[in-house]
Amino acid sequence: MAEQAPGGEPLAIICGGGSFPGAVAAAAERRGRKPIMFGLRGWAEPAAVERHPHHWIAVGQLGRFINLARGEGCREVILIGSLLRPPLTQIRLDWLTIRWMPHIVRSFRGGDDRLLSGVARMMEDNGVRVVGIDDVAPELLVPEGVLGHHQPAQRDRADIAYALQAMAALGPFDVGQAVVVANRHVLAIEAAEGTDRMLQRIAELRRQGRVTAPAGTGVLVKAPKSGQDRRFDLPSIGRSTIENAAQAGLAGVAVTAGSTIVAEPAEVVAAADRANVFLVGVSEEPA
Amino acid sequence: MAEQAPGGEPLAIICGGGSFPGAVAAAAERRGRKPIMFGLRGWAEPAAVERHPHHWIAVGQLGRFINLARGEGCREVILIGSLLRPPLTQIRLDWLTIRWMPHIVRSFRGGDDRLLSGVARMMEDNGVRVVGIDDVAPELLVPEGVLGHHQPAQRDRADIAYALQAMAALGPFDVGQAVVVANRHVLAIEAAEGTDRMLQRIAELRRQGRVTAPAGTGVLVKAPKSGQDRRFDLPSIGRSTIENAAQAGLAGVAVTAGSTIVAEPAEVVAAADRANVFLVGVSEEPA
Repeated sequence: MAEQAPGGEPLAIICGGGSFPGAVAAAAERRGRKPIMFGLRGWAEPAAVERHPHHWIAVGQLGRFINLARGEGCREVILIGSLLRPPLTQIRLDWLTIRWMPHIVRSFRGGDDRLLSGVARMMEDNGVRVVGIDDVAPELLVPEGVLGHHQPAQRDRADIAYALQAMAALGPFDVGQAVVVANRHVLAIEAAEGTDRMLQRIAELRRQGRVTAPAGTGVLVKAPKSGQDRRFDLPSIGRSTIENAAQAGLAGVAVTAGSTIVAEPAEVVAAADRANVFLVGVSEEPA
Repeated sequence: MAEQAPGGEPLAIICGGGSFPGAVAAAAERRGRKPIMFGLRGWAEPAAVERHPHHWIAVGQLGRFINLARGEGCREVILIGSLLRPPLTQIRLDWLTIRWMPHIVRSFRGGDDRLLSGVARMMEDNGVRVVGIDDVAPELLVPEGVLGHHQPAQRDRADIAYALQAMAALGPFDVGQAVVVANRHVLAIEAAEGTDRMLQRIAELRRQGRVTAPAGTGVLVKAPKSGQDRRFDLPSIGRSTIENAAQAGLAGVAVTAGSTIVAEPAEVVAAADRANVFLVGVSEEPA
């Protein structure tokens, strides 16, 4: 926990894409910790990485990361930011990674979540503990309750509950972090495409008359996969999530409280108010 | 059952889009029954409808359908062909339908399947029994076993079993008639978009490097929703299913034996052979 770490102990941040790595670095600084950025080449945004002490690494260079992190005095690391499954040509394997390969391959077969758990175990066996966002930057997690000016209606609450039930059913299959439900009818389940594309699909199907629920009906619900290791790959939302939900004609967005990341909370709430959609943090337990 | 119907008893066929209504009419004729086509205006293909004695009806004209069907001496009806949720402007309500409206609205909230069950009950209360494809044209159902020259590998069998398990988990939610799995990783779950668009999405994600499973990996699996009324909305495949699966880089297609419709079996098998994908009918029970 940040509170237990010696004052100023540096925090290694392995940076994927998007704005979350920068937001976590800022939160660490607010707690008096020095962020050391490890930008993943091809994913991390250079500006965010280079604002702090940093190194660039490739996916697969776990040995290099561990040496660099220990050299910087880091005993804790957080993995944050988007990291789509990398094309094989982008991967650089170092010796430590190769030695762990059989274990990693076994993990990979079980889906993203188990892959990351395997990587975390490997880091911890080498003296760098993997921490989660609630340890180092809890203010980036969505709280419970309605966050903007718009309230979910009773019908929306029913759609949220239905979506959470469907997601719970999919839990064992490492898929379905996001679902769109309108009038207890599942319109979309997210898999490899990601949330924004899924919402764009709803907008397109609506334009083509293939989704006939009236505008202002339906909810996007995001929740972590059940049984998921909470130290990585939590669901996240940003302004584009809100704007795409509005474009898809939805009434609003519900995310699980305490387990959904938002980099710029105030900006996201303002976007929801502007777009006339609600944004609510809900309990993870399906009703 | 066709066998029990008096020789030559006419069969009412309510025709949605695509080639299935014509295929069912041909199958009925082979059994000595006279098909009476009821084309749904805006969905049914005029050529298929007008090849036989026919009437045109609008969605919502259940009273008109029942009067016409009884006038033709039909005591059995089959609903066949694609019928996407109709835009409201295309619906024409007659008095019988309006009288049943509260019941239909209740059904509608439960998803497509319950809507159709409500419509079936309404027809049966008015003297026209709704039959299924296994009653009147069982030769249009995919049989068990490998159908073309290509065989599923052991890995494909494992992906098929995994997909069937995921679909069984989604059964209570009236969604997920088709799923794409590669190496036990769920790449897509079908909801409002339909199978062809889902497969086109996989092809696109693969081009963009967001799906990294090598070409020739992964399966499309189609199965009826669990608890679904088998008299309508069974999954179906056609040449486009095979071609889109090949475009998506999949190893093959698995559908549930005895509950998946194929209008032109020989053509579909030939397409699979040409495209180097397997096509297999599997048992519905997840392994």
